Formats: sequence, C-alpha cells, structure tokens
Amino acid sequence: MIETHSSTSRIAGFIVETVYEDIPPEAIHIAKQGILDWLGVTIAGASEPVVAIIAQYAKGLAAKMEASGICQGFMTTAELASLINGTMGHTLDFDDTFANAVRYNIHPTTCILPAALAVTERLSLSGRDLILSYAAGMETTYRIGAAIGQSIPEIGWYPTPILGTLGAAAACAKALRLDVSQTCSALGIASSLASGLKKNVETMTKTMHAGNAARNGVIAATLAQSGFTGNQSVLDGKISFCEVFSGGRGPDMVPVDDLGKEWWIVSTGLGFKPYPCCRATHPAIDAILYLKQRYGIRPEQVASIICKINPLVLGMTTAHRPKTAYEAKFSMEYCIAKSIINGEITMRDFTDKAVQESSWQYLIPHIHFEHPAQWGHGAVDLLTEIVIRLDSGETYAYKVSVPKGEPENPMSQDELIAKFRQLSSSVFEGKKVDELLEIIQGLDKTTTLKKFFEILRKPPS
Amino acid sequence: MIETHSSTSRIAGFIVETVYEDIPPEAIHIAKQGILDWLGVTIAGASEPVVAIIAQYAKGLAAKMEASGICQGFMTTAELASLINGTMGHTLDFDDTFANAVRYNIHPTTCILPAALAVTERLSLSGRDLILSYAAGMETTYRIGAAIGQSIPEIGWYPTPILGTLGAAAACAKALRLDVSQTCSALGIASSLASGLKKNVETMTKTMHAGNAARNGVIAATLAQSGFTGNQSVLDGKISFCEVFSGGRGPDMVPVDDLGKEWWIVSTGLGFKPYPCCRATHPAIDAILYLKQRYGIRPEQVASIICKINPLVLGMTTAHRPKTAYEAKFSMEYCIAKSIINGEITMRDFTDKAVQESSWQYLIPHIHFEHPAQWGHGAVDLLTEIVIRLDSGETYAYKVSVPKGEPENPMSQDELIAKFRQLSSSVFEGKKVDELLEIIQGLDKTTTLKKFFEILRKPPS
Repeated sequence: MIETHSSTSRIAGFIVETVYEDIPPEAIHIAKQGILDWLGVTIAGASEPVVAIIAQYAKGLAAKMEASGICQGFMTTAELASLINGTMGHTLDFDDTFANAVRYNIHPTTCILPAALAVTERLSLSGRDLILSYAAGMETTYRIGAAIGQSIPEIGWYPTPILGTLGAAAACAKALRLDVSQTCSALGIASSLASGLKKNVETMTKTMHAGNAARNGVIAATLAQSGFTGNQSVLDGKISFCEVFSGGRGPDMVPVDDLGKEWWIVSTGLGFKPYPCCRATHPAIDAILYLKQRYGIRPEQVASIICKINPLVLGMTTAHRPKTAYEAKFSMEYCIAKSIINGEITMRDFTDKAVQESSWQYLIPHIHFEHPAQWGHGAVDLLTEIVIRLDSGETYAYKVSVPKGEPENPMSQDELIAKFRQLSSSVFEGKKVDELLEIIQGLDKTTTLKKFFEILRKPPS
Repeated sequence: MIETHSSTSRIAGFIVETVYEDIPPEAIHIAKQGILDWLGVTIAGASEPVVAIIAQYAKGLAAKMEASGICQGFMTTAELASLINGTMGHTLDFDDTFANAVRYNIHPTTCILPAALAVTERLSLSGRDLILSYAAGMETTYRIGAAIGQSIPEIGWYPTPILGTLGAAAACAKALRLDVSQTCSALGIASSLASGLKKNVETMTKTMHAGNAARNGVIAATLAQSGFTGNQSVLDGKISFCEVFSGGRGPDMVPVDDLGKEWWIVSTGLGFKPYPCCRATHPAIDAILYLKQRYGIRPEQVASIICKINPLVLGMTTAHRPKTAYEAKFSMEYCIAKSIINGEITMRDFTDKAVQESSWQYLIPHIHFEHPAQWGHGAVDLLTEIVIRLDSGETYAYKVSVPKGEPENPMSQDELIAKFRQLSSSVFEGKKVDELLEIIQGLDKTTTLKKFFEILRKPPS
C-alpha cells in the first residue's frame, strides 16, 4: 500500500510526474556539464586494470547486446554495461562530487549516469530522455544524501554506492516510465541491494562500488517493471533505508517539500575536480599554484612549506611517501611537491612511473603540517593555508576555503571542455572528440543517440 | 597484505586447505540432508510468481549457458542461475535454518548451495566437490553468524543475505580452487555486495535476498579468481564487515580456533522444517498435533485454546486474520486452527484458496494468547504451551520448547525423505523423484552430475 504522504511516495511521484519541460534551464546546463565531465573521466579510465577485469568478466558472460561498454568494443546487457561503465567512471577518482564533497563524500554521477545511459541505449531513447532520467536520479540522491549522508561514512560505509544505488534506481525508473507504485518498489528493491564498505577503499572493490550501484539500479527498476515488489515506504519510518544505513542517526523523513520546485543540482550544485586526486588536496594545490604564479617561486628556492589544515581532512590523505599512482592521489605531500615543481597537476603526474621517480621526493622533509587551534575539527571544513618560506627568508601565505571546482568556485564551461578534450584525446582522435563534444552540447536536441553510442563503444585503435 | 593471524585469513586458510577427506562422516551426512531438503523445497517453489519474474528476467538476458535454472527449462550464467535457484529455495519459507533459528534467524543453505551448485555445473565438478564447497560455505557462515548474527536483525537487516553472501563466496572460492589471498579478496568483495533490509520482508524482495546473496557469492569469487582485489582482512578490526553490520556491537574477531577440528554443521547442527510456515509456529503445532492424537480431540469439542508463548516470538507471527498463503505462514491463529482441524499441516494448507475458505475461521475467537510472567522475554526462547479446554470441561496441556526439526529434536532421515518425496512429486513423476533421491544419497560417490542437472533443469510437463 502506498502511503501518499511518505517521503518515498513523494519522491516516486516527483520521478513519475516530472517531464523534460519541467526542468529549469540551469539544471539542464549543469546536467550537461555533469555528463560531459563524467564522460571525459570515464574515457580516460578505460584501460585501467580494474576496468579490464570487469570488462573481461562481463564479456565472458556473453549476454544480450543492449548497451555499450565504453571503449570496450562490445555490447552487453544494460545491467552489465552499467557495471562496466560505472566502474570505469570512478577508477581515476577524477569524477564529480556532491557540492559539499567532504560532508557527503559521494560521487553521484558515476552511479546514476551509467544506469541511465544503459537504459537509454537499450530503449533507443532521446538525449532529452537521458537528461531527464539523470536529473531525476540526481535529485533523488541529493535528497536522501541530505537526510543521512553525513552519518553514513562514520559507520564504515563507502557512501557513494549506498546513496548511488537509489539514485540509479530512480534514474532507471524514469527511463522505463514506471508508475508510482513500481517506482516505490524500485526504490525498495534497490535498498536491499545497496552496499559498499569503506574497508575496501584501497582495493579494486572501491572502484567497483560505483559500477555495482549502477548495475543494481538497473536491476531494481527492471524487476519493478515486471511486477516485482519491494517495500512501498522504504525511506520512511522504522527500520527504513535511512535508519539502517545511518545507524539509527538519520531522520525518518527525507526532505521532499520543495521537490520539483527547487532543483538541488542547481541550488546545492555539483562539484567537478580540476585535479585528478583527492578533493582534500585541492585547497593546498590551489594555494600553491596561486603563490607560485603570483610570486614566480621556483622549487629550488623553497626552504619550507607549511600546510595548515583541519586534521580530519588531512586524515583523508594517508600516503605520506606514496609508491603508486593510486597512493599519490591520496598523498598531500605528493600533490604539494608536484604543484610547486610543475606549476600544475595533471593526469601525467598520476602514473606509477611519475610517482616512483626521485625528482620530487627531496621536498618531503620540507613539508610540515599544522592545525590552528581556532579552526574547526569537522571533516566538513576544507579550509587550508599554505605558507611558503624561501631560503632568502621571504614568506608567502595564501588561504583557500572553497577549492576550485566546488559550486561556489566553479570550473568554467571552457575549463570543463578543456578537461574533457584532454582526457578523451588520450583515447580518441581529434575529430571524434569534437563529435562527442557536439553531441553532448546538443543533447537536449538529439532524438537519437545511436551515433553517440557507436563512437563510445569503439575500442581505442 | 595478509595478516596471517586475522580471522579472515584463518577462515580463508581453512577454505583453501580443507579437502574432502577432512570432512567427518557426520558432517557429510548432514550436508547431504541439507542438499536433499533444500532441493525438495526448491522444486516445490518452482512455479511461485516471484520465481517466474526472476526466471523470466534472467532468461531475457540471454547469457552464456553455464548452469541450470531448476525446473525452468533453460541454462544461463552461474550467477543468474544462482539468483533464480536461491530465490526459488526461499520462496516457500520452508527451507532450513540455523540450529538456533530464532537467535540467528538465518536460512543458510538457500544462499550457499545454489552458488556452489552453479559453479559445480559450470566446471563439471563431482558430487564430492559439491559437498566440500557447500560445507566450506556453511562453516564460514556459522562462524560469522556466531560472532554477529544476534546483532544483525536488531538493526533492521534481514540476516539471511548478510551472512549468506559471505557463505556463498566461501563456497565458490572452494569450488574455484582459489588460493588464500584470492579467497580473502572474495570475502572482501562479497562484504561490499552483502545487503538486504528487513523492511522488505513482506515483499518479493524478501525472497530474492537469498538468490541475490548466492549470485553475489558467485560474482565475488569469480572476480577474485581474475585478480580483482578486496580487503584482505575484511572480518577483522575497525570498520570490518562484523563491526558495520552489527552496528558496532560485534566482536572484532570471528571464532576460528577450532576451524577444521570441530564442524559446527554437526555440533550446532542444521534445522529442518516439518511444516511450511514460520518457525515460531512450530512448537504450537507440535503441541496440538500431540494432544489431538493422544486424546482424540475433535475440533467441534473445543471450547478454547490457550497458547502460552514468549511475546517476542509471537511478534514474528503478525497475521491474525490471514487472507493470503504468505500471511498464513506467519499466522499463529491459522496454524493452530488448521492443526486442530486436520491433525496435520502441509503445503496444501498454504494456498490462497485454503486460507480464504471459511471452514477454519470460526476457531479464531476461541484462540487466546498468554505470556507467563516467569518465562523469558528473549526472542531466542521458543517455549510454548498449548492448553485445550473442551466443552465438556476436560482440559489438556502440552509444552514444547524445542520444536520438531531442530537439531535437538531432529526430523529422521525417513521423515526428510518423505518431505522430499512429497514436495518434489508436485513437479516430477515418481521415477524422476527416485532418480534424484538416489543421486543425492550417493553424492559422495558421484563423479559427474550431468544427469542430475539434466533432470533438474526440465520444466514441469
């Protein structure tokens, strides 16, 4: 039975009733940015080892050709394509984050979009359908994340797949045009599939969490369409999804009153990463790049670099002497050293070879951390101050609280396009990159995405 | 890195090193009983609506033919066959339980065995391989269940898939002959796939929890075999599987000291259900059948039936005036009324038609519940006393604490065979039932299970 005033049924009602014309232009703009950014990051991750194993696994199952494995040269079922592409989008840890990434610490798009894409391809839907599904999934995720996102990581969950599974189910429910009861069921089924332990974050399983969330979203919505039932009020009341995954700390309601009126993808926004490393390193990188450029600092002049930072944020960067590309993404020392040496941080810095070379390591003993007593302790607060003292005694300092890429300090459209070009050109020739860009920018006018998927599917030659 | 003294690596070591010859005969005997009982229950559930949807879904994915959907007439991948068969085995809620079913409230076999069966079929393994994999999965599940099983349901998890996913991964790790590190990875990956909310227990999702656990066990072990990594100590220390799923209440160690020396499938045992309804109804049914037979009580003589019971146990039987077969399985009133009328409780009592007919409903007002103050309140305690007062004033009472089917009051081998015959003959003709029985009884001597799967695969004609 549907409780019409439950937040579950109100979210389901929003998903079912919203049509493309209801989405404000700003939300469409951000959704297209999200699709663009995710696609570049995903393409650049296509040949990572974790993706190779998952793609080989999926290919070996030889299932129905419904949807494309990006850059994998084959099609498979929508659920397996979601698994592959969702994993691929998260493998570089360069994909988008919730506005308040540290607080929620979730990567929404790489759970939601691969699911929406796979169903779009399966059903030959339009670019508008894709945007609509993706936006519905994002709003659902943002609302549930606002209710319980903060409690989730404290318990030991990796929050991305916990919230992302429901977002992916919501996106697929929209793409499949489920009714309200079926959509409630899809959310109910998805709630019993959502999982992902933080304990696994230094393994390949961390990356697969996103793909698994996408896959489970497809499964939940597809089963609900066939009459399969899940609890109709899974987000409400006792032993709800919210209560269980927040360890009883979450509210028993998800904020739904302004659903469809305020689009949180606009008001809360979506964060994009300019640098392919942990969000916690971004303020320090911003500060160093600023100081280096402004004062023409050369690394050989540096006597010391003090990084004043919230200790909880620093705790996210655990590798003090990184040996691998993956560790370097979570190494404040590495990111600081490379920034002061190169004046930029790019994908080229995150190869095992680049990390293992000795050119940057002499700086490690010169990097120090401090935690000003008056600063907050919460993991929310990214505020970072960099103080560079030169051998000459000159000292420069710069403070960053909202790093580049957060909605309050956004990457420009040109910067996002440049990021996309740089990442996708690692796989595609210039002409194909242009074609992909054009398709995404015109996604709201595209009735068929056949060409789009054809390009994407092609393995790098 | 493997911590050699962690409980994860010790369980993995046990899984890897144990060979068939290490399993004591009593454990082999119980394993064969578990396989027999599960198979009968599964066959009888083959045409339930929930199975039809899942089977149709899996069939539609048209994936590689590795393993059989029982009574479904098709083969699919090992993971999808596990999903179908695991769901099928749990749909009647007539499948086996942990010895102390109320405490752990888990159905182990229908998560573990379908996964082991599917990999056995995929790799053309022998009957001994099947027993070995199943036993390894059961021991793993029992150990983890002993550590945290009691905390799991309180939080809002449906415990069967939470523990069963790791059991299924363990079984598949054995069948695939993974090494210790791969087996640790399989347990790590499985931990990030385990899920299942109690909130869904009155929906089809409840049944699918078991199939999904089986499927995820196959996925986890298959990926680990390909070099995919999961945390190597997922059962130990901070934010472990145990800590997260027990809400921090579990110990940071799983009991492993007597692994391979004591087989808990023997010492703790496996419970089988003589009646196709909630375990909490079993003591009351036992008592009524005893009193009815001993004193020749006819239902029309009954003035009142008092059921003295632990209120927490009674809380598991929520349907006071059931309308559907599913509700009737969780209705103490229905089970009491049918027992006094028929002198037996069988599958025939659990059809919507049987529940909706009026012949038993006149008894409802005559059934009363009491909770003796001196009795325990814990959900562990199944102790039930039935007091029947006749119109003549005669009163008979009988108390049951360990219902028929628990390891301390077991179903005999003949009773298990009779249950199997009754259930499987709903689908198969007598000759096939005999063949299946013969194969299972000789499973420890069977080198090929080709014939077995051929019979099982066949749809009812």
